[in-house]
Amino acid sequence: MEAKDVRLQGLLQTHGKTIILPYDQGLEHGPRDFFNAPFAEDPMHIIEIAKKAKYNAVVLHVGNAQRYFDRMYGQVPLVLKMNGKTEIPTDAEPLSPVTASIDDALRLSAIAVGYTLYIGSSRQDEDFEQFAAIREEAHRAGLPVIVWSYPRGSDIEGKGGKNSLYAVEYATRTAVELGADMVKVNVPNLKQDPRIPEPYKSYTTDLQEAVKRVVRAACGVPVIFAGGEMMSDEDLLQKARICINAGGSGFIYGRNIWQRPVEKAMEITTQLKQIIREGKAKK
Amino acid sequence: MEAKDVRLQGLLQTHGKTIILPYDQGLEHGPRDFFNAPFAEDPMHIIEIAKKAKYNAVVLHVGNAQRYFDRMYGQVPLVLKMNGKTEIPTDAEPLSPVTASIDDALRLSAIAVGYTLYIGSSRQDEDFEQFAAIREEAHRAGLPVIVWSYPRGSDIEGKGGKNSLYAVEYATRTAVELGADMVKVNVPNLKQDPRIPEPYKSYTTDLQEAVKRVVRAACGVPVIFAGGEMMSDEDLLQKARICINAGGSGFIYGRNIWQRPVEKAMEITTQLKQIIREGKAKK
Amino acid sequence: MEAKDVRLQGLLQTHGKTIILPYDQGLEHGPRDFFNAPFAEDPMHIIEIAKKAKYNAVVLHVGNAQRYFDRMYGQVPLVLKMNGKTEIPTDAEPLSPVTASIDDALRLSAIAVGYTLYIGSSRQDEDFEQFAAIREEAHRAGLPVIVWSYPRGSDIEGKGGKNSLYAVEYATRTAVELGADMVKVNVPNLKQDPRIPEPYKSYTTDLQEAVKRVVRAACGVPVIFAGGEMMSDEDLLQKARICINAGGSGFIYGRNIWQRPVEKAMEITTQLKQIIREGKAKK
Amino acid sequence: MEAKDVRLQGLLQTHGKTIILPYDQGLEHGPRDFFNAPFAEDPMHIIEIAKKAKYNAVVLHVGNAQRYFDRMYGQVPLVLKMNGKTEIPTDAEPLSPVTASIDDALRLSAIAVGYTLYIGSSRQDEDFEQFAAIREEAHRAGLPVIVWSYPRGSDIEGKGGKNSLYAVEYATRTAVELGADMVKVNVPNLKQDPRIPEPYKSYTTDLQEAVKRVVRAACGVPVIFAGGEMMSDEDLLQKARICINAGGSGFIYGRNIWQRPVEKAMEITTQLKQIIREGKAKK
Amino acid sequence: MEAKDVRLQGLLQTHGKTIILPYDQGLEHGPRDFFNAPFAEDPMHIIEIAKKAKYNAVVLHVGNAQRYFDRMYGQVPLVLKMNGKTEIPTDAEPLSPVTASIDDALRLSAIAVGYTLYIGSSRQDEDFEQFAAIREEAHRAGLPVIVWSYPRGSDIEGKGGKNSLYAVEYATRTAVELGADMVKVNVPNLKQDPRIPEPYKSYTTDLQEAVKRVVRAACGVPVIFAGGEMMSDEDLLQKARICINAGGSGFIYGRNIWQRPVEKAMEITTQLKQIIREGKAKK
Repeated sequence: MEAKDVRLQGLLQTHGKTIILPYDQGLEHGPRDFFNAPFAEDPMHIIEIAKKAKYNAVVLHVGNAQRYFDRMYGQVPLVLKMNGKTEIPTDAEPLSPVTASIDDALRLSAIAVGYTLYIGSSRQDEDFEQFAAIREEAHRAGLPVIVWSYPRGSDIEGKGGKNSLYAVEYATRTAVELGADMVKVNVPNLKQDPRIPEPYKSYTTDLQEAVKRVVRAACGVPVIFAGGEMMSDEDLLQKARICINAGGSGFIYGRNIWQRPVEKAMEITTQLKQIIREGKAKK
Repeated sequence: MEAKDVRLQGLLQTHGKTIILPYDQGLEHGPRDFFNAPFAEDPMHIIEIAKKAKYNAVVLHVGNAQRYFDRMYGQVPLVLKMNGKTEIPTDAEPLSPVTASIDDALRLSAIAVGYTLYIGSSRQDEDFEQFAAIREEAHRAGLPVIVWSYPRGSDIEGKGGKNSLYAVEYATRTAVELGADMVKVNVPNLKQDPRIPEPYKSYTTDLQEAVKRVVRAACGVPVIFAGGEMMSDEDLLQKARICINAGGSGFIYGRNIWQRPVEKAMEITTQLKQIIREGKAKK
Repeated sequence: MEAKDVRLQGLLQTHGKTIILPYDQGLEHGPRDFFNAPFAEDPMHIIEIAKKAKYNAVVLHVGNAQRYFDRMYGQVPLVLKMNGKTEIPTDAEPLSPVTASIDDALRLSAIAVGYTLYIGSSRQDEDFEQFAAIREEAHRAGLPVIVWSYPRGSDIEGKGGKNSLYAVEYATRTAVELGADMVKVNVPNLKQDPRIPEPYKSYTTDLQEAVKRVVRAACGVPVIFAGGEMMSDEDLLQKARICINAGGSGFIYGRNIWQRPVEKAMEITTQLKQIIREGKAKK
Repeated sequence: MEAKDVRLQGLLQTHGKTIILPYDQGLEHGPRDFFNAPFAEDPMHIIEIAKKAKYNAVVLHVGNAQRYFDRMYGQVPLVLKMNGKTEIPTDAEPLSPVTASIDDALRLSAIAVGYTLYIGSSRQDEDFEQFAAIREEAHRAGLPVIVWSYPRGSDIEGKGGKNSLYAVEYATRTAVELGADMVKVNVPNLKQDPRIPEPYKSYTTDLQEAVKRVVRAACGVPVIFAGGEMMSDEDLLQKARICINAGGSGFIYGRNIWQRPVEKAMEITTQLKQIIREGKAKK
Repeated sequence: MEAKDVRLQGLLQTHGKTIILPYDQGLEHGPRDFFNAPFAEDPMHIIEIAKKAKYNAVVLHVGNAQRYFDRMYGQVPLVLKMNGKTEIPTDAEPLSPVTASIDDALRLSAIAVGYTLYIGSSRQDEDFEQFAAIREEAHRAGLPVIVWSYPRGSDIEGKGGKNSLYAVEYATRTAVELGADMVKVNVPNLKQDPRIPEPYKSYTTDLQEAVKRVVRAACGVPVIFAGGEMMSDEDLLQKARICINAGGSGFIYGRNIWQRPVEKAMEITTQLKQIIREGKAKK
């Protein structure tokens, strides 16, 4: 087994699935994500949740990864995010620039690296080249690459939006074709839209089946699902259940976890793990 | 004989011609190509066809080439595709960005590499430089380069479209001038168009003669023909016959092969090989 | 302790805080900043103030740093500014290009390097990559990086301007996420503006609390505050007091210091130090 | 004498002048240049003419140079063209991208390299940098550089067009300033045009004198003249006579030579050599 | 003393000032500068003047520097111009691309290198980075850098034009901040313009004082003045006198010198030297 695959297995330690705590929103959305949960502005809050609730990894940008290295090393596995941007410039032609190097990842003992790929952006060509360089260097260094595979930009808007089943399946497949070791996507939105290309435009299905299609588009590469903005416990758990039943490999929920106090975050995590266990039992 | 030419001969093993099974459409067109043939979403379907029908090579992007290496090595020769893109952004000024390296090709034991060149795109200059670097590195590594030579972009639309005889001949010649070892083109479309430059605008001919011209434009470099969207068996075989009779070096048919179940794919492949054999007999 | 952190401590020698004298305005604003204080056109004026008033460092671009090296070495610590621009081109999509190298910084015995990051500019992607390279190289060389973290460009104007609390907090956090060792920002302006994103639009507070929020956004990374254009002593000292009381790590005041004759500059510096001492006493 | 100058002398072997057979039109103009002379589509036609008529060199792009190396080596000197483009994209802001490397030139035993410089294009800045790198590397490798020095793009159109005496003199001088070892230009067109800058606008002269001015603009660097589209023998020989009498260093005629059958090509070449001999006798 | 400073002293050998003969106009303006002085088209004319009138250096682009190396070495010091462009493309967003390397400068035994910096151009960012690389490499090679510091582009036009005192002072200061060892500027034009930024808009002075301000903006770096188009002897000498009296470090007059026959060029040079001597005597 290649070194990168050994490390990837190390991420799949929650009954064979993974739960990852992403904390790159300080850059992606800015401090507004901490406004109503000021405790979450402190990275130690996230590290504490990860430790206590035994998350398989925390995702950080290089600044925090470096500053909190001594409080994570040997206790909380790190996924180093390799690129990122603020939400201030318009999102019409996005490209997520590189903010860290594989040398950073090695120095900080990362278990994997994360990369945001904006599928369908008019700058997709630059993105693919940037990704190819990182993918190759990461694999050479024994690090698996998790791709945040996001349809984005005005062209996908013109084809029905970034969350259509068409868009999410295509994004999943693209990450896999380019060499991702794990793919993070959003749960598709089944709202119909005349701009979605055929045969997807005329296709109707339920969410469980849709998520299955997304998982299948990955040719066996583990697919994990994002959580998005804070929602009710009920909605979150229902969403999680669908993902697991559809064959998803786990969750990468951020705001829905760390916008809660530590105890509350632990509680909901326990419920998420229970869903994974139940999913496993079903098989 | 140079190492790259030895490997190129290794591709021409079907009665001196080649049949190649391309599977880069998951990236180029997305999962819609698998919608009505869901079995084809799994790369193993393609690998199985290639093995059973003895294709001279399968074309993959690096992600699948890496993941299925253990199921192909020593059994199905690999053409590693070096660049690619999704169909989401507009095709007005296309450039196909690099997605893999020659190091990848060597590690994965590729017999050749594939490169998509968009002749006539306003970004042709970047494309030529990108190609020159890969061509040089590939040859140094003993790998032949197959060029997907596609007229594309708004300027060629203004000159009568991407499939005119003018466009296809020019694309073929361009690939050859730049150092391609094998050229993949579309069969030209003989529809007249007042925007096609002279003397091609006033020139009329039949398809067989047109394909001959394309083959001749290659100065002896092997020319292979793409299949495009699924068509009837009759049309496909007729098309294949014309290409072989015109001196083409083989077929690189994807959807027309792998959108069929394995047995059906084997049947049509047998017929394609028969056409090659007959072509050889004629000579 | 890493070499870069040892040097960073060397900057925090004014009762645990820092006072830094920036002199990059000759490039950023041009000679108009010296028009009414012609003595300040001569870098020796700044070096003299720094020596006599015991500033923790002077900030210079490479030209002056090199020319005055023999008059500073061992006497006035240098922060070498790594990028900069003139104010002549429009500021709609700013990027501050690199003007010096880490090799320059080492040769000139800099204690730290300074980098201007234009948060929210449409060229933010280039900026992040440029910064990442410098951050990594600086840290490898044992040099801390001070980020001039400035929201800038038309997109932030459309979100309420570069000095809103939203903008300044986001800029602070961004620098920290990307690996800054110290952050220089402007004191936020609390003027309401309907274009500021929620929840900041509806949020009202006083300046002291606002500055606290900015300091908190830095996750423990020292935040220092810029002075801007010359103002009255009273205003300057009041501003300084707020920054210190809010947990700021010091001042980086330029024009407000060096547009005064040496004696006057020393007097106001004494008062600034007094504010730091008082702030310390309060704790 | 530097290695590059020794090789340059090797090109000037036709009574001290040079006759070069360029065959880069398959890329620059596409197969339409072979339409009425289909035998010329085969590079062997050109190689045969060059051998039989003792051309001082043939100009090829890397693809053909490589494929026909075994039929040229030791018999026909090669000028490897280093850049080129198709005529499909608009010519408003041209840049000729690099298609080969100096390593290619050395491997293929080239006697010189050729480079197309588009003087006055809005992308002239990229062109100059690209040229500088090749010029430096070529000279280090002992290879002289022949510059196809072509005024081109919308700005020169606005100044009276690409073939005015102003434009051609300027192009010649530019190539020389940048380090060309030989300059290829078009014979100027003396048509008056109010948009030509002064003092050229008001200047009238005859063609012989105009060509002399072009030769003089080169500061002693050999200037050779292009032929352009096929013309009558009479016109071609008259043009050749003017160039030689004006001090030109030879001809680089393509279509006017190789669009003829071999015997005809040999005949016209004999006449061209006669013109050179007569020119020499006059001196 | 650093090697670069030793060489810089070698340029200041005319009573402690410098007279430099620039001959980069063949590229910058084209052959029209030689139209009425055809003898000047030959670089030997310039070399002869430099030798006979003992100029401290001649400025050449790499092509001529290389070709005339054997006639200059040990007799006329060379300043190698590192970048340049033609005047054909519009000057709205200028960038002067690199045309030679520091390796060229060393091989050609240059005493210094020259670089054109377009202050205020919208491409100033690229320019600064390009300059930083050359400045660093030149200094490492012991070569001083003379900056042609020219305000240029549409943004400076919108601020009152490229020759205002504001523009010239700013350009001087910018070159110095970025590490120039000597700065070449135009004598400012004192014409008032409402678009000039304050406080310069309201400021009136005489030419001598204006030039003094420019010299002072350089923080002690030698400032030399350009001559521009041919003018009367009287005007030229008057201009020279003002520059010297204002503390300028010499002249870099091209067309005003070499558009004269050698004897006339020697005469005017003698007068210029006399002005320098007088300036020295005054002190």
